[in-house]
Amino acid sequence: MEAEEMRRLGYRMVDLVVENALNRHASPAIQADTPEALAQALGGPLPEAPGDADAALDTLARVALANMQHGDHPRYFARVPGPASFAAVLGEWLGTGFNTIATSWGGGSGPSTVELVAVRWLAEMLGLPEATEGVLLSGGSLASLTAFATARAEMGPGTAYFTDQTHSSLPRDLRLLGWAADELHMLPVDAGYRMDPARLAAAIQADRARGRTPRMVIATAGTTNTGAIDPLDEIAEICAAHDLWLHVDGAYGAPAAITAQGRALMPGLARADSLVIDPHKWLFQPYDVGACFVTRPGALERTFAMNPEYLRDVKTAPGTVNFGDRSPELSRRSRALKLWMSLTTYGAGRFRAAVARGIANAEFAENYLRQNPARWQVVTPAQIGVVTFALVGADAAEHARRAKVVSDTGYAAVTSTLLNGVSVLRLCTINPLTTEDDIRQTIDRLGAA
Amino acid sequence: MEAEEMRRLGYRMVDLVVENALNRHASPAIQADTPEALAQALGGPLPEAPGDADAALDTLARVALANMQHGDHPRYFARVPGPASFAAVLGEWLGTGFNTIATSWGGGSGPSTVELVAVRWLAEMLGLPEATEGVLLSGGSLASLTAFATARAEMGPGTAYFTDQTHSSLPRDLRLLGWAADELHMLPVDAGYRMDPARLAAAIQADRARGRTPRMVIATAGTTNTGAIDPLDEIAEICAAHDLWLHVDGAYGAPAAITAQGRALMPGLARADSLVIDPHKWLFQPYDVGACFVTRPGALERTFAMNPEYLRDVKTAPGTVNFGDRSPELSRRSRALKLWMSLTTYGAGRFRAAVARGIANAEFAENYLRQNPARWQVVTPAQIGVVTFALVGADAAEHARRAKVVSDTGYAAVTSTLLNGVSVLRLCTINPLTTEDDIRQTIDRLGAA
Repeated sequence: MEAEEMRRLGYRMVDLVVENALNRHASPAIQADTPEALAQALGGPLPEAPGDADAALDTLARVALANMQHGDHPRYFARVPGPASFAAVLGEWLGTGFNTIATSWGGGSGPSTVELVAVRWLAEMLGLPEATEGVLLSGGSLASLTAFATARAEMGPGTAYFTDQTHSSLPRDLRLLGWAADELHMLPVDAGYRMDPARLAAAIQADRARGRTPRMVIATAGTTNTGAIDPLDEIAEICAAHDLWLHVDGAYGAPAAITAQGRALMPGLARADSLVIDPHKWLFQPYDVGACFVTRPGALERTFAMNPEYLRDVKTAPGTVNFGDRSPELSRRSRALKLWMSLTTYGAGRFRAAVARGIANAEFAENYLRQNPARWQVVTPAQIGVVTFALVGADAAEHARRAKVVSDTGYAAVTSTLLNGVSVLRLCTINPLTTEDDIRQTIDRLGAA
Repeated sequence: MEAEEMRRLGYRMVDLVVENALNRHASPAIQADTPEALAQALGGPLPEAPGDADAALDTLARVALANMQHGDHPRYFARVPGPASFAAVLGEWLGTGFNTIATSWGGGSGPSTVELVAVRWLAEMLGLPEATEGVLLSGGSLASLTAFATARAEMGPGTAYFTDQTHSSLPRDLRLLGWAADELHMLPVDAGYRMDPARLAAAIQADRARGRTPRMVIATAGTTNTGAIDPLDEIAEICAAHDLWLHVDGAYGAPAAITAQGRALMPGLARADSLVIDPHKWLFQPYDVGACFVTRPGALERTFAMNPEYLRDVKTAPGTVNFGDRSPELSRRSRALKLWMSLTTYGAGRFRAAVARGIANAEFAENYLRQNPARWQVVTPAQIGVVTFALVGADAAEHARRAKVVSDTGYAAVTSTLLNGVSVLRLCTINPLTTEDDIRQTIDRLGAA
C-alpha cells in the first residue's frame, strides 16, 4: 500500500473512533442483532479478490462494532465496564503500528523496559512491596493462571481455598492446571459476602487432619457481584501461620487501592504473594491487559523459564528481563505501552481522581435508592464501585425483565445477579464520565419499566 | 480529552507509523540499547502530574519502539519474522479505538460474528474439514495450551509424543497443564529432522506394554529450526490405529498450506484433531494473534465452558457462540477484526501470492548459497520459508560471531542455531517485501564478516 493511502486510511480510522467517542453518550450502551443479519453483513464466501478498504472499515464500524456491549459508555453498568482512555488507546495504536514484541531482552529491550517501568509504577500506585515483580497478560483469567502455576511451582501441589463469591474463571484456571476436584475447597461467605477467616482456619485444620496439604488461599479484593473485600490482613495472618501462598484476585477491585480511601478498605493487600489486577477494567486501558504481580523475586522465572538449567549458570544482566520467561506467553505484543502512555499523559493524580469518582458514583446511587424505601431496598451498600438492590416485592424474573427492558432501549446496560440464591439488580459505576443524572435516570427507568 | 485534540494526536500517531514504514528498508532490522540508557529515557519516578502527549508519543517511537527486533523489516531473517500488513493494522486499530470485546454472544454479537467468519475463512484457506471450529488467542503458546487441554478433556490424561525439534514452548505448556515428566515422550528425529513414524509406533507399543496410556501425538508442520514438515499422513494413520489425538503445530509453517505447493508438502494436515497457526507470523497480522482449530465439534466448549451443566439443557442459539467458553481467556479483545479487514481488503489471492513469495525467497537463498560451494554448505534445503547453512570450516562461535556482526550493523537480523548439536546459520524468508538483493547482500555480508 502506498504511503499516501496508508495515511488517508489511518486518518479515516481515527475519524471513525473520534466520532464514536463524541456520540457515545447519545448512542446505545449495548446493542445486538440476529445471527442471520450479522452473518449477512459480515459473512459470505472467502473473498478471493481485493476489496475496498474504506467500505470494509465502514462495515466494521457500522455493523461489527456497533453490535456489542459498549463498556466505555457512561451508562454501561453491567458486569464490569471498560472505560478506556484516549491516551491509552494512542499507546496501544502506536505499538500495533510498529508491530511491537516484548518477549526477549535481546529482541525487545525498548518494549521490555517500558513493561518493567509500567509494572513498577502500578506496583507503587497499589502500595506493593518494592521487590514486587510482574508481567502483563490479556486479562484476569490468564494472569490468575500465571499466578497459580507460580504458587504451585514455589510451594508444591495441594489444596486451594476460595469462596462461592470467587470469580468462576479462577476454579476453571485451577482445574485446567491439573488441580484435582478434591483439592478445590470452596468456602461459604459471611453475611457481607466475604471470606470468613474463622471458617478458613477451621477448613485448613480439618483438611490437614484428613491428610490433605493446604497450599494456597485465594482472596478477593472486590468481588464482581457486590464489590466485597475479603479481610486480607486476617487471611494473611492465617497464611503466614500455615505457610500458605496468599493470592489476591483484585481483577476488578484492587485498583481502588490507588486512592487513599480505597487503600484503607484493603489492609493487608501488600501481604499478597501474588496479586492480579485488570487495567482494562478500572485503570482506563482498552482491552486487553491484565497484570500478575508476584512479591517473591525470581518466582515467575523459576516457573516459566524454558531453560532454567541455563539460568542457573548465566544470570541475565542486571536491569534486563526476558518477559517470555515470566508467563505462558512467548510471542508477546507490548501491553505496557498504553499504560506508560496514559500514566505519562494524565499523571497518576488523575487516575486517582477518576477511580475516586467511580467510588463516589456508587455511593451516590446507594443514597438515591435509599431516598425511596417504598420502592427500593439496598441489598449490599456501595462497596468500591458496586451497589446491589432489589425492587420491593419483585422476584428474579421481574428483575431480569426490567434490566432487559432498560438495556433493550440502549439507554443503559444493567444486569441482575444472584446473592445466596436471591435476585438483585446491580450497578457497577466505575466510568468517571458517568454523571449523577445518568445514575438517577437509569434507576428511575428501572423503577418504571 | 477534546475531540480536536484526540483527532490531532491520532493523526500524529498515524504519521509516526507511516513514516516508520516508509523508512523501514533503510533503517536497522534490529537495534538494542543498554538497560541504563533505556531506563534513563523511559523510566524515572511515577509521573504524578499530567505530561505532554506529543512528547510521550515521540519518546515511545524514538526510543522504546526503535530498540527491538523489527520483525516486519525485509531483512529480518532471525527466528520467525512478523511481516504485518497495513490493512490488518487498520482492523486492529479500529477494534482498539472502539474497545471491542468478544467474550459472550450477548455482549459481543458483532465481534463474535467476525471471529466466526475469520475462523471459517482461515480453515477454508488451509483446507480443514467443514466442521472445524476455532478460537483466536495471543499466539502459539496459548493456542497450543488450549488444544492440549481440549485433547485431555476429550481423551483423558496420558502420554504425549513429540520430537526434539518440537518447539520448546509446547512441553512447557504440557508441564503447566499438569502432565507428569514421565508422560512426556520426546522422540529423536530422522535425518531430515522429521518425526519418524516407525519410531513413533514402536514407542507407543513399548509404552503400552509398560502400562502407560498413549493419548496424543504432537506433530509439526514446519519446524522453527529448519522448516521440516513431519509426515502427517503416516502419523495420522498411527493415531487412528491407536485412538490417539493428533495435534499439529503449524504455528510458523502451516500457512504454507494456503498455497498449492505448500499444501502438497503437508498431506494429512486436514486429519489433525487440533491445529495451531500464528497469523502474526506468516499471515501478515500484527502481534498478537494465534489460532487454535479443533475438528471435533463442541470439544472446545466441553473443555472450557464455565457452566457446562447449564449447557446440557440450554443450547446456545444456532449461529451463536460464547468465545469465552472456547479457551482459558474470558475478557477477550477481538483479534478477528484484523484478519477480516486484511482478507477483505487484499483478498485471499494476494495472501497466497505473498506466502508463495516467502517460499520462493528461501529457494532463491538456497540456490545462491549453492553457487559458492567452496564457501557455503547448505545443511537443510529451502523448506517452506527456511534454509540453514554453514560456512565451510566454521564452528559455532564463528557462526555466532558473523551473525552478530551483521545484526549489529542493523543491515539484517540473522541468528545461528544448533541441529543435532552442529551449528548452522539460518534464514527465515517469509517477508514478501524481501528482495533478491536483500538476500544476496545478507549472505555476502555473512561471508565477509
